[in-house]
Amino acid sequence: MSLLVVGSVAYDTVETPFGKCDKMLGGSASHFSISASFFTNVSIVGVVGGDFTEQEVFDSRGIGTNDLERIADGKTFRWGGRYEYDLNVAHTLFTDLNVFADFQPKLSNESKRSRLLFLGNIQPDLQRGVREQMPDAELVALDTMNLWIEHTRDSLVRTIKGVDVVIINDAEARQLTGIPNLIKAARELLSWGPKALIIKRGEYGAALFTHDSYFAIPAYPLESVFDPTGAGDTFAGGFMGYLAKTGDIGDASLRRAVIYGSAMGSFAVEKFSIERLLEVTPAQLSARVADFRKLVAFEEEL
Amino acid sequence: MSLLVVGSVAYDTVETPFGKCDKMLGGSASHFSISASFFTNVSIVGVVGGDFTEQEVFDSRGIGTNDLERIADGKTFRWGGRYEYDLNVAHTLFTDLNVFADFQPKLSNESKRSRLLFLGNIQPDLQRGVREQMPDAELVALDTMNLWIEHTRDSLVRTIKGVDVVIINDAEARQLTGIPNLIKAARELLSWGPKALIIKRGEYGAALFTHDSYFAIPAYPLESVFDPTGAGDTFAGGFMGYLAKTGDIGDASLRRAVIYGSAMGSFAVEKFSIERLLEVTPAQLSARVADFRKLVAFEEEL
Repeated sequence: MSLLVVGSVAYDTVETPFGKCDKMLGGSASHFSISASFFTNVSIVGVVGGDFTEQEVFDSRGIGTNDLERIADGKTFRWGGRYEYDLNVAHTLFTDLNVFADFQPKLSNESKRSRLLFLGNIQPDLQRGVREQMPDAELVALDTMNLWIEHTRDSLVRTIKGVDVVIINDAEARQLTGIPNLIKAARELLSWGPKALIIKRGEYGAALFTHDSYFAIPAYPLESVFDPTGAGDTFAGGFMGYLAKTGDIGDASLRRAVIYGSAMGSFAVEKFSIERLLEVTPAQLSARVADFRKLVAFEEEL
Repeated sequence: MSLLVVGSVAYDTVETPFGKCDKMLGGSASHFSISASFFTNVSIVGVVGGDFTEQEVFDSRGIGTNDLERIADGKTFRWGGRYEYDLNVAHTLFTDLNVFADFQPKLSNESKRSRLLFLGNIQPDLQRGVREQMPDAELVALDTMNLWIEHTRDSLVRTIKGVDVVIINDAEARQLTGIPNLIKAARELLSWGPKALIIKRGEYGAALFTHDSYFAIPAYPLESVFDPTGAGDTFAGGFMGYLAKTGDIGDASLRRAVIYGSAMGSFAVEKFSIERLLEVTPAQLSARVADFRKLVAFEEEL
């Protein structure tokens, strides 16, 4: 099944205790699409400036960019961040929205026929506008962030009511619902309409809530996490890519998709930006999925 | 196999947004032994004052208290704490060590013959003193806290070198080793001597590290957590109790023990103090262990 993502394409500057990289390909749509491209055909709806020179990366992965708008006299979105030695502590150094400030997603007719849609972390009115252009999509998932929960909560809730899967982190789930207990928060959020909620927990893994089941998986145990930027979008790309590839959106498939998303996310953080992701082989991916099975395996008693 | 625990027996005063309880049975040895008593014979080494009136609770669970010293003219250790609406945020209101201030563990010859030993969270010199009185114990596990890591680190490291299993939370593992990455921290800690390390992660579950394997399990999804006090000791009691019952300390058994510990811990937080734990039936415990299997289950691809 075909997959469409709407989100940011950016140049990132990232500092970690292990090094610094400047002007690397970033943004939610980039991380998502590169991850999803391991599984399926994926296309981007986004905007870049005249300074964008990373088209080759998308082409090399067969990622559709017909709806990646180019504004020749504008500059690409730039983001800078710094991580502390404890990589859970992140600081934004700068955010230059540039052409992304006036982003209006424009979908070609071909894009509108995509069977699956991922609404990356952008203003919820824009997300809803895209979703309404694709009333027949079989599965629509959404990501968001604290900025939109604080300033545009009503619009965000309306948008969530129109999607199938919400993919956020635990702090966002609590903030969005105002409920500290995550299980109750998940139940509340599902009562708004989505059939599934995925909670990303960083180094603790991920959890999948549906109306009648709960699934949780720890994170892959990595001895060195190099750059966590984009791990969430990479997870979402693996998750949606797997569903698109199999064409199965039943509960068992959703669980497997969480594993594939977790595996892709675990690769992403091993190097800067998309470096490690571009090197992943099918054999490496299969091995990591098999490792996930082992790390939660416990035998029945004799 | 027989099991011995050395630790505190206390009266707790706990405030949560859901209520307040005063002078309830608490302390690491209490939570541990009541949990372990579901699986095996367990005895306490500890101290109480002349005001202690909870002997009946221990008797009703068949918990050995020959080495629970009574100081008639002293007062039992008292602790008071308050949890915020987000139960991860805890505040200590008071700590009256009372008879616990001068606690010197005294082991009867019968206690010294116990096959398994749990060193609850007390001063590491005292832990090591107990451990050295039981050179032939088959499995010795230890808990600790930030206080001892800060003020008596050298003694604590010496004590850890003499035990088989360390059971701590993730912040303690990072603080103890000075390594932010938990996987690296675990490897460092295991290099000191223990054959296994269990990291308690509260609402995120628990992880088991050995020299050649890694196992992780999410927490049981609870919609209402009432009182988290003692959950870690209850976990340890289930873990050690299961090992004592089965007499098997191999890797597969350790994994199952983590599940039983997690199940007991999940019951403990459903009511104040030990209330819920005393009500648990074998059928409820079996059902919860089966639930753990379901919540991490994902089918192979077709």
